[in-house]
Amino acid sequence: MTQKYFAQIYVTLRPSVLDPAGTAVQSGLQHMGYDNVERVRIGKYVEVTLTAVGESEAREQLDRICDQLLANPVIENYRVELTEIPLPLTPLKG
Amino acid sequence: MTQKYFAQIYVTLRPSVLDPAGTAVQSGLQHMGYDNVERVRIGKYVEVTLTAVGESEAREQLDRICDQLLANPVIENYRVELTEIPLPLTPLKG
Repeated sequence: MTQKYFAQIYVTLRPSVLDPAGTAVQSGLQHMGYDNVERVRIGKYVEVTLTAVGESEAREQLDRICDQLLANPVIENYRVELTEIPLPLTPLKG
Repeated sequence: MTQKYFAQIYVTLRPSVLDPAGTAVQSGLQHMGYDNVERVRIGKYVEVTLTAVGESEAREQLDRICDQLLANPVIENYRVELTEIPLPLTPLKG
């Protein structure tokens, strides 16, 4: 039986990769007076709703989706958090 | 005494706002054969390291930073998760 899942995917630049957008935000914050901000890194946050026959199938597919489309494995890392969405109760036939 | 904090900020489009980038990713996934993906929404994930005298000051400042720079409150929501970074141990003088 298929089950519905809600995935939260965080795509971040690898620590060794420069982040010009993050640096721009940090310098903007400095100009706005926030001189206590030490570091800003910007990534992507993606929510995916999908159906699968089990958690392991869902995870496997999400890993492939990240590698193929959502993240660039050369410069980015990703993390997937998976939640099962409870199915609505259906009345028993009888 | 100031304390160091690590903030994880999630900026998402309000549910009523259309997400063309998310729709494009979903349609790309369909073409790649992932026809079990029902919905994709794309947001931003921002990591900020900052110093503040306490958690409430840090939260207040991060809310202002989100309202002024990181999010557009008209079409976006944001959520801030704050973690205290332990200071390195300093030897007692004496």
